[in-house]
Amino acid sequence: MSTPEELLELIEPYLDDLALTPELGELERSMRHALAGGGKRVRPMLCLATAEAAGAEPEAALPAAAAVELVHNFSLVHDDLPGLDNDEIRRGRPSTWAQFGPGIGILAGDALLAEALRLALTYPTPNVARELVQATLGMIGGQYLDITGADTDLASLHHLKTGRLFAAPVACALWVAEVPEREQAPWRAFADEVGLLFQIVDDILDEDGYLLERGADGARALADETAERAQARLAEVPADTSVLSGIVAGLAARTS
Amino acid sequence: MSTPEELLELIEPYLDDLALTPELGELERSMRHALAGGGKRVRPMLCLATAEAAGAEPEAALPAAAAVELVHNFSLVHDDLPGLDNDEIRRGRPSTWAQFGPGIGILAGDALLAEALRLALTYPTPNVARELVQATLGMIGGQYLDITGADTDLASLHHLKTGRLFAAPVACALWVAEVPEREQAPWRAFADEVGLLFQIVDDILDEDGYLLERGADGARALADETAERAQARLAEVPADTSVLSGIVAGLAARTS
Repeated sequence: MSTPEELLELIEPYLDDLALTPELGELERSMRHALAGGGKRVRPMLCLATAEAAGAEPEAALPAAAAVELVHNFSLVHDDLPGLDNDEIRRGRPSTWAQFGPGIGILAGDALLAEALRLALTYPTPNVARELVQATLGMIGGQYLDITGADTDLASLHHLKTGRLFAAPVACALWVAEVPEREQAPWRAFADEVGLLFQIVDDILDEDGYLLERGADGARALADETAERAQARLAEVPADTSVLSGIVAGLAARTS
Repeated sequence: MSTPEELLELIEPYLDDLALTPELGELERSMRHALAGGGKRVRPMLCLATAEAAGAEPEAALPAAAAVELVHNFSLVHDDLPGLDNDEIRRGRPSTWAQFGPGIGILAGDALLAEALRLALTYPTPNVARELVQATLGMIGGQYLDITGADTDLASLHHLKTGRLFAAPVACALWVAEVPEREQAPWRAFADEVGLLFQIVDDILDEDGYLLERGADGARALADETAERAQARLAEVPADTSVLSGIVAGLAARTS
């Protein structure tokens, strides 16, 4: 089994060397700016670790892992636009639109989404791409709920806005590893808990959402329960899931 | 063979009744506003007519035809945004962002693109989705050339910005009709000419592009030559392409 560090050493060079569609021309610069922002790469890591636990070479899951990361970055690039969050800073650097202008920001996000689907479509069957596109649609629905402040509970909002793009890398990896659909349920249940865990810890660190709703102790307790449920789901999977278990522990304990 | 009118009578109800992803919630209203703008549906018509000429039921190509139309509308919704063309009017009605706000305009375009891919992925093989995503990437590259005014000739710009999304419905239809790849070349050559023809006539009607470059007579002559080449390509296809031939004649003669 590869350690999380070893998986990251697969992901970063793969993203750096990713050949984008030549017709995008110089738009590539803005897309690389968005991608190179020093994200934690949690989603692609989950994808590779799941693929390996399910019996595939982690390298086989690299296109799927990168596709999920591109969708994630597409969503950040568009979220930051003046029409949405109007954020000029992302991860301590100028956001894509702040660096290249709002028009390029729109096109860079569009192109990241389309490139993500192109990558997902390099597999022989449509399953990886289907997972990714459904997760993307769910995430956009969550975005819409978020900006309209529609009357919805935090759990439903986060399930869409954050959860779908945490479940997708696990689900994509199952297809890459050719896990039959009838055996996917425990993995998918695990993935749902991981997405929720990530969001609760995010809220604790950002003093937002669950922290405002439940206070510091309440939110921490919720995070710990969710991490326990994720580990319990993982224990139901008939495979060596030790690396995934370590990733969950790391997500629960993270401080940034 | 179905007449263009009969094909349109398949397309409009299919688009009207299209079940969008439920998680998009009320974002659907803005997407339907964009889709219901009374476009000419040239691209989906080309898709159905090609599918039928190539031996499939036109109904079998409806998801592909609608997918192309959704990508087209995604591009219009994003083009109209304040960060790009800043157009408040589209086809005599408020553009999507002008009606729903710029934030919803961004999300509506994103969701139209993702729904398009979802539709393209309803086919058993990834071929339709691959064609669509590659055409979308080319189109975005063309958009980028257009807004940056990069040093490029009109033909290259239009080949990307308009041409790719005219070639896509023909190519998608070939996969739907299961035309073997080795037999696709004359169809694809035809599709390239149709995209160019559409753009030249657009420029004549808008007094833009080729009209500015070549004058009214020069642009008209170019349109006629292109239409002739399209018809010649079509004549090389071993099938009854009479309906496609009529669509080309209509595109060459159109006045709006």
